[in-house]
Amino acid sequence: MPTYRAPVDDTLFLLNSVFGIDRYNNLPGFEDATPDMIEAILSEAGKLSEEVLAPLNQTGDQEGCTRNEDASVTTPSGFRQAYETFREGGWVGLSADPEYGGQGLPATLDAAINEFLSAANMAFSMYPGLSKGAIAALSLHGSEDQKRTYLPKLISGEWSGTMNLTEPHCGTDLGLIRTKAVPNGDGAYDITGTKIFISAGEHDLTDNIVHLVLARIEGAPEGVKGISLFVVPKHVPDADGNAGERNAVACGSIEEKMGIHGNATCVMNYDGATGWLVGEEHKGLRAMFTMMNEARLGVGIQGLAQSEVAYQNAVAYARDRLQGRALDGPKEPDKPADPIIVHPDVRRVLLTIKSFNEAARALVLWTALRGDVSHRAGDEKEREAADDAMGLLTPVVKGVLTDKGFENAVMAQQMYGGHGYIAEWGMEQFVRDARIAMIYEGANGIQALDLVGRKLPRNGGRAVMAFFQEVASFVQENAEDDALKPYTEPLQKGLDDLQKATMWFMQNAMTKPDNAGAGSTDYMHLFGLVALGYMWGQMARAAQSELAAGANGRTDYLSAKLATGRFFMERVMPETSAHLARISTGAQTMMDMPAEAF
Amino acid sequence: MPTYRAPVDDTLFLLNSVFGIDRYNNLPGFEDATPDMIEAILSEAGKLSEEVLAPLNQTGDQEGCTRNEDASVTTPSGFRQAYETFREGGWVGLSADPEYGGQGLPATLDAAINEFLSAANMAFSMYPGLSKGAIAALSLHGSEDQKRTYLPKLISGEWSGTMNLTEPHCGTDLGLIRTKAVPNGDGAYDITGTKIFISAGEHDLTDNIVHLVLARIEGAPEGVKGISLFVVPKHVPDADGNAGERNAVACGSIEEKMGIHGNATCVMNYDGATGWLVGEEHKGLRAMFTMMNEARLGVGIQGLAQSEVAYQNAVAYARDRLQGRALDGPKEPDKPADPIIVHPDVRRVLLTIKSFNEAARALVLWTALRGDVSHRAGDEKEREAADDAMGLLTPVVKGVLTDKGFENAVMAQQMYGGHGYIAEWGMEQFVRDARIAMIYEGANGIQALDLVGRKLPRNGGRAVMAFFQEVASFVQENAEDDALKPYTEPLQKGLDDLQKATMWFMQNAMTKPDNAGAGSTDYMHLFGLVALGYMWGQMARAAQSELAAGANGRTDYLSAKLATGRFFMERVMPETSAHLARISTGAQTMMDMPAEAF
Repeated sequence: MPTYRAPVDDTLFLLNSVFGIDRYNNLPGFEDATPDMIEAILSEAGKLSEEVLAPLNQTGDQEGCTRNEDASVTTPSGFRQAYETFREGGWVGLSADPEYGGQGLPATLDAAINEFLSAANMAFSMYPGLSKGAIAALSLHGSEDQKRTYLPKLISGEWSGTMNLTEPHCGTDLGLIRTKAVPNGDGAYDITGTKIFISAGEHDLTDNIVHLVLARIEGAPEGVKGISLFVVPKHVPDADGNAGERNAVACGSIEEKMGIHGNATCVMNYDGATGWLVGEEHKGLRAMFTMMNEARLGVGIQGLAQSEVAYQNAVAYARDRLQGRALDGPKEPDKPADPIIVHPDVRRVLLTIKSFNEAARALVLWTALRGDVSHRAGDEKEREAADDAMGLLTPVVKGVLTDKGFENAVMAQQMYGGHGYIAEWGMEQFVRDARIAMIYEGANGIQALDLVGRKLPRNGGRAVMAFFQEVASFVQENAEDDALKPYTEPLQKGLDDLQKATMWFMQNAMTKPDNAGAGSTDYMHLFGLVALGYMWGQMARAAQSELAAGANGRTDYLSAKLATGRFFMERVMPETSAHLARISTGAQTMMDMPAEAF
Repeated sequence: MPTYRAPVDDTLFLLNSVFGIDRYNNLPGFEDATPDMIEAILSEAGKLSEEVLAPLNQTGDQEGCTRNEDASVTTPSGFRQAYETFREGGWVGLSADPEYGGQGLPATLDAAINEFLSAANMAFSMYPGLSKGAIAALSLHGSEDQKRTYLPKLISGEWSGTMNLTEPHCGTDLGLIRTKAVPNGDGAYDITGTKIFISAGEHDLTDNIVHLVLARIEGAPEGVKGISLFVVPKHVPDADGNAGERNAVACGSIEEKMGIHGNATCVMNYDGATGWLVGEEHKGLRAMFTMMNEARLGVGIQGLAQSEVAYQNAVAYARDRLQGRALDGPKEPDKPADPIIVHPDVRRVLLTIKSFNEAARALVLWTALRGDVSHRAGDEKEREAADDAMGLLTPVVKGVLTDKGFENAVMAQQMYGGHGYIAEWGMEQFVRDARIAMIYEGANGIQALDLVGRKLPRNGGRAVMAFFQEVASFVQENAEDDALKPYTEPLQKGLDDLQKATMWFMQNAMTKPDNAGAGSTDYMHLFGLVALGYMWGQMARAAQSELAAGANGRTDYLSAKLATGRFFMERVMPETSAHLARISTGAQTMMDMPAEAF
């Protein structure tokens, strides 16, 4: 059975040594997040992940969810009890509004913890994960009454939430939504339609499930401008605020899917269910979008998480598995063979994953910090800059971390040879689970288009210019530090490629948007490399400072950090030039081809 | 349900227009392979694949194989009948020795057909595929008596074969094999041990199963020099040559695995089973290796096949699925949305796969042709050169076609959005099935080491020098042809990178083999790009000649061919420089890292 150990120390290094989270203690909620408190919270979350959630990951996959004849859904054995433990720990509301029972801690901590939960048990972690989405939507757009009704129960974990967007004929293009909302005369609506791919749509973990549903009010304008957001509880809250009468919404079936079998992916049938408008009429899509950044960051974290847990197990296997001999002669001559970690190709794979994971973890926390600042800073300019950065980085985090997270899970599986293909060893589950993160919450092609088509040009390129400036300043500030040159020089080269690609779009895509579309995925990954490289620059600087200051008893950790970063610069960053070359060829060859010639 | 259409026309274009198979009609077996005959055979194989095998692919995956209480194994519904049809068609023995009932046709045709079979139903196609391996082993190394006993039954498909190499503690490192062979006094041996991951180890398709088993004769030298090859039939042939007494070998269990559920992957227990030595004592590994090229080519074909079938379905979906609008304005304004094939990013993905598939098909046929020449040419020099080329290209075909084949299946799945993750649509099965091809028959890291550590230096680099010379000559011969420059110039650039990488190994890996190991996988893929690029050069030249000669009524096909090749050169070939950059950084960073620091 695979194992998992939460990277608490690495997370603390990032929060304390690299990003200096204590510098933010003027923000609401951050004053409570003292170094000791952060360490205690992360350690506790790590323990929960390792001891409660990880042991249910493989069994949850094998058992899956069952839809019963009465349309109820049973989650895998142990999930109910684990959820109780989770709920009692107050984990759902860690960063939620204290006014409704949340702890108001930085969402950055939530992001850190989400990695642990998702690595330990992705399918399980999605149940409370979806609740957080519902909390965010209602917090931002719900009426006072809606907040009082739903937020305390969602934040305590007594109830859970879902997001209902997709229909059989529309996923990406929500303008095609057909689910209908008809005013029922008392201020509410009758909701009718079918939603598919609804994660955690029905289950047995909570008394009530709060569905947030996109639908079209009768007579609404066509397309995305006629979509509204509704809250449709499985049980209508009674006068005391408890789960009351059963609403006309039910799980029609559970999808048979490639992975995340422990999470019920439901077809949800709304048959005149009572729903209440959230926010304004016809502005449902905008309401959805305001919470999209957090949700997409969460999916990016899933990519990192599967990469991390797959990596940990691959390392353990590579140290244990005896097979063949080192290329330059036996390393353990008294054993029948050397462990496979002696082989450079095995180390190449492991370091490719490790150097990604550590930078991706940094990028997640850095982006989440921007999110916290954007919501909590007193200064408007500061909020704006942080919001710019978060908006810009979100599609990168979602797209790159899930694409690479999946690739890494595949590479980690490969370390096991034939055993990697066998269910018993657990590696193939990481691959199957990781796969969905590239698809949902906006398929990665959509992330790339969001980056190139919306985030780049927004406000005259303000966000991207600020990002380039920040990276360039970092390189300049450290240009004279010889020890940092193995990091800053490749980073500068990567930044050059990214700026050239950006310039190419400015010159070639304004009049021909297909030139942007044709390069969008390459651009997203090029951007990701530079962002990850920037994280490595910061980590290397922090590690060198700490080593210079006496290393605090962790010379090995800091040396490994520096070596891992060097590997990233040598072996991963060179890809930027291939991305630039591809982008610069433009769209013509692919667009000239008639559709029937494919 | 996914569909499949065998690429018969594209295969004929390669055999006739690109490689001019008629030029080989002085070789035994080729004289029968007239253009009409080839077309008839390929069409028939295509029909079989499309109509008999493809419809059983998804049901076979869902149903899987069952081990019964008596240790017998039941294959999925329909497999028995399909196998009967397959056997009656004489497909097992298409290229086998006519002396034992084969048709003696070029193995190149076998390779072409294997793509169709494997694309239609990879799990099914492995049953006869394993028989071909057993036929090859016995043809090359069996005694006359063994050949007479087993070959006719294997070639007719009445019996099937398996290869038994792996044990729980050894896969790559066969020197660790423990399965024991004890002479039983009458010239045979008692074989005892456990073999794992035995594809088609037990099933209900044939009367008898002929296991080829690696084992260690009591008292044999340690390591790979003490391994012998045995034939161990499930039923010992009786005096009439029919399946007689049951031998002491049985399926202990079927592995639960990620994919190819329709093929029984067995743990095989040998409990003093009677076996006969094949070839010489202690030279079993050499016997295995002589048939490895064909087997690895076959696995490379599986990578191409899954890529092709996934591609075909992704194209169909991209033409049908209405979602969003083209970036430069609606293409089908009367419909609620445009088909997603209007999007450059969708086309980029589809052309990435298509441009790989067509070149990979060419590379498979080109390599198989070299194989045929190496076995059948009258001239020794010609045989030697062909054997060099086949040996060199085999790890490239196996490693690159399966790595990329899997990646392509993942990209094709991505085109379906959420539906790609749902079993019903069939795309996730292609991904799960394709995954094994990167692992078995020598994991791809081993292919890369085989290429760099054995195939490159062999005979003073004779094979690789000849390959470079061949590609360089092609470029030179066509250097003045402006219409070919979009193909020859990037090919030359790729060849330059490959030659630089080869030179780097010569300068840096002789004394430090880790420098070769650290770059081996990148080198394999760099080699693959140049080989595929060379195929594109040849295809482009053939397509342009045919267009110039009047196009023979297929201007669209030839134009699409040229555009697809141009895409490959613009978007895929630039990767060679990133591979070279990575290779040139060497092994030091990764080897300096202590094993415990990972």
